[in-house]
Amino acid sequence: MAQRTLRLGANLNGVGNSISFWRHPDVPVNASVDIEFYKQQARKAEEGKFDLLFIADGLYINEKSNPHFLNRFEPLTLLTALAGATSHIGLVATLSTSYSEPFTVARQFASLDHISGGRAGWNVVTSPLEGSALNFGKGEHPHHALRYEIAEEHLEVVKGLWDSWEDDAFVRDKASGVFFDPAKLHTLGHKGKHFDVQGPLNIARSKQGYPVIFQAGSSESGKDLAAKSADAVYSGHETFEEARQFYQDVKARAVAFGRNADDILIFPGIGPIVGRTEAEAESKYREIAELVDIQQALNYLGRYFEHFDFAQFPLDEPFPDLGDFGDNSFRSTTERIKREAKEQGLTLRQVALRASTPRSNFIGTPERVADQIQQWFEGGAADGFNVRTVVPNGLADFVDLVVPILQERGLFRKAYEHETLRGNLGLAVPENRYSGKVSV
Amino acid sequence: MAQRTLRLGANLNGVGNSISFWRHPDVPVNASVDIEFYKQQARKAEEGKFDLLFIADGLYINEKSNPHFLNRFEPLTLLTALAGATSHIGLVATLSTSYSEPFTVARQFASLDHISGGRAGWNVVTSPLEGSALNFGKGEHPHHALRYEIAEEHLEVVKGLWDSWEDDAFVRDKASGVFFDPAKLHTLGHKGKHFDVQGPLNIARSKQGYPVIFQAGSSESGKDLAAKSADAVYSGHETFEEARQFYQDVKARAVAFGRNADDILIFPGIGPIVGRTEAEAESKYREIAELVDIQQALNYLGRYFEHFDFAQFPLDEPFPDLGDFGDNSFRSTTERIKREAKEQGLTLRQVALRASTPRSNFIGTPERVADQIQQWFEGGAADGFNVRTVVPNGLADFVDLVVPILQERGLFRKAYEHETLRGNLGLAVPENRYSGKVSV
Ligand SMILES: Cc1cc2nc3c(=O)[nH]c(=O)nc-3n(C[C@H](O)[C@H](O)[C@H](O)COP(=O)(O)O)c2cc1C
Ligand SMILES: Cc1cc2nc3c(=O)[nH]c(=O)nc-3n(C[C@H](O)[C@H](O)[C@H](O)COP(=O)(O)O)c2cc1C
Repeated sequence: MAQRTLRLGANLNGVGNSISFWRHPDVPVNASVDIEFYKQQARKAEEGKFDLLFIADGLYINEKSNPHFLNRFEPLTLLTALAGATSHIGLVATLSTSYSEPFTVARQFASLDHISGGRAGWNVVTSPLEGSALNFGKGEHPHHALRYEIAEEHLEVVKGLWDSWEDDAFVRDKASGVFFDPAKLHTLGHKGKHFDVQGPLNIARSKQGYPVIFQAGSSESGKDLAAKSADAVYSGHETFEEARQFYQDVKARAVAFGRNADDILIFPGIGPIVGRTEAEAESKYREIAELVDIQQALNYLGRYFEHFDFAQFPLDEPFPDLGDFGDNSFRSTTERIKREAKEQGLTLRQVALRASTPRSNFIGTPERVADQIQQWFEGGAADGFNVRTVVPNGLADFVDLVVPILQERGLFRKAYEHETLRGNLGLAVPENRYSGKVSV
Repeated sequence: MAQRTLRLGANLNGVGNSISFWRHPDVPVNASVDIEFYKQQARKAEEGKFDLLFIADGLYINEKSNPHFLNRFEPLTLLTALAGATSHIGLVATLSTSYSEPFTVARQFASLDHISGGRAGWNVVTSPLEGSALNFGKGEHPHHALRYEIAEEHLEVVKGLWDSWEDDAFVRDKASGVFFDPAKLHTLGHKGKHFDVQGPLNIARSKQGYPVIFQAGSSESGKDLAAKSADAVYSGHETFEEARQFYQDVKARAVAFGRNADDILIFPGIGPIVGRTEAEAESKYREIAELVDIQQALNYLGRYFEHFDFAQFPLDEPFPDLGDFGDNSFRSTTERIKREAKEQGLTLRQVALRASTPRSNFIGTPERVADQIQQWFEGGAADGFNVRTVVPNGLADFVDLVVPILQERGLFRKAYEHETLRGNLGLAVPENRYSGKVSV
């Protein structure tokens, strides 16, 4: 087996996930709807030989939402535009199984996969926010367990549709007039609890077979969905120990489902802050943290708890006891917030500021950040990382200063090895379920 | 008022709408899923100063479907890819209101509109094929009248979502920390017969306000939807007299709805065949027509009639009497086929061959084709044309040979006048429904 090497994703998010990021003088204020900004970021990530671009998403906003969420590109269209501005980097779009049609999802991802020459990926999510239901004519947001049940069936249907055409179905023989071999066209005929979808899909598979399946959601149900059906997981753990436990847990579940541990790759999300000195890195963090308005930080925190109104509580007293509130939304995140507040005796103000501007563990000189990455990677906590931009020019700093060290240490590629995302991630092309079987 | 000038759209369709087109030696057999092919066509159309690219669509295939329909790009992703390969041409994607969610549709088109700098358009259709229902878990394909009722409400919701943010809503003042003005954010709160959609949309309008709304469907209900809510109509009339009647009819309906006649533009679809001589043009037509297999022609015809099996009838006897069969599908097309067969005493074979390889009226030398165009345009039958490729290099022939004549005659632009599609089409930017009003 070839030496195991690190994977890197660039999580692009316009004016940023941290609520005050856009206020920094060096951040372009309309980044979330500026295609030139995204193209430039995408090219920088490709210059750094990143495996993939990653676009998060959401389906509900209100006046308290984070600036970036209010006015941003839709991920599939954004990544299709970035396909033309890049040549090798993977393109992973977040899309919710709770509010979409498998036929449309299968089709749009397959189309992006062809357009990009086999570089597409789908980050499967179930939508945490209750309000999403209101935008899709659903009376009620499906409960957590039901969302994951729907997700599993949705994903199965999409994969089934992707297999509609065997790879050699299109004969296209001008002389005989035979365009395709009918024995290699398959009608899915799915009839399930949540979806009835006949097929076939009106587009073939690309050369990577299926788009790469990411999953983001770290609850028990989330881990099971990933272990059973995903190629990769985007996770949000802050400490090495948490990340290591999660990593071992998901790999063990994958093995229990009859897969190999390395059939599924774990990508913790990190927001590195790199300075030429430790002090420079710390001051970059402070520049962002000091721009936070405490009212906005409370709104931001509230969003994780179904837009709960934290302003009703005193700021400098212990974080209030919320019982199981938040369980139907970002469950793994709300559980962590509640646990840390209790264990560390944090006040509401401290919790809100920490949530709105998390202080990255990956902070310091390029060597120190590279060391952390190496430790997580070699210590069984990560196969790769999804790198968020949390300070101005964060991606460029990482590409210019950290990537060369990782390359030097033999941890990361110096050139793309493959044309497809699956190829670069070292994932096998899934066999078409009908291949080699006689059609009925 | 400026002189009225012609509009041109390029209807791109890979291996073609005519069933035998792909068999011609000069046609690339994988054109329908080859992004380089589409980019090259798009650039050619832009070289010819076309107003727009137009992508048709469908949601159901079976083994009898036309080659191009079996394996093709999804329109929104395709046009987003073409946005990056072009700079001025409009990008009009077909998308069905019968099988989509207004929130997703509004978002994806708005995203394309931002990505392309205000060049997006939506061709609103209701899906003719009954089988579409099977791919979307619907027990039954909604009947013709119901489809149009749904379409009207869907389109209203989408427009409402596009108005979520007033144009000056985003203050983005770094000093004060005010990202947007809450008084300029609007929650639609639509509760209707077919859709409940709260909003707001998580993306602002582009500089053209709304994407340009096309409508394709020529039945009474289709004409009313267009006259009431569309900016442009794609129609399929074969003769000048039919086209003229349709044109006058739709314009009169628009006026009855309180609009100006020139608020809605009529684009008949044409498949020009241009030769340096009449004989060369005729031989180009014959080269395609002679490649048609009669069984495939019957399948093709059958698709218009809900995949009716015409093979059960004798080929060389009069076209069978089908009663009102086909009314719930491509109604305007099936009515025309039945009428012409009766009036002209055509056999089944003749009807099938004519349907599968219609002989364009726009055939001959460049001057003759330009004359026809001018006649329709000046004679009140068209504001512009949607140009299909029906012979190899059909688009390039048109751009190289016909466009210069139209330009010479002062009928068509020599350079783009505007950056947006609305601008080039001479359509006004729709005012945001909330602008100038005090928010409640
Ligand atoms: C690291 C991480 C990233 C996520 N990204 C998204 C996202 O971009 N869009 C989204 O709708 N949900 C996202 N989710 C939420 C989950 O997909 C899911 O909808 C919800 O939180 C329930 O997941 P759970 O399994 O963590 O409880 C993310 C979750 C995690 C842990
Ligand atoms: C010229 C023309 C082009 C059309 N293009 C499409 C298309 O690309 N996709 C589609 O689903 N329906 C298309 N339609 C069909 C209509 O939108 C509609 O779904 C159905 O035919 C009923 O329309 P009618 O009003 O003509 O009866 C087209 C119709 C016409 C007349």
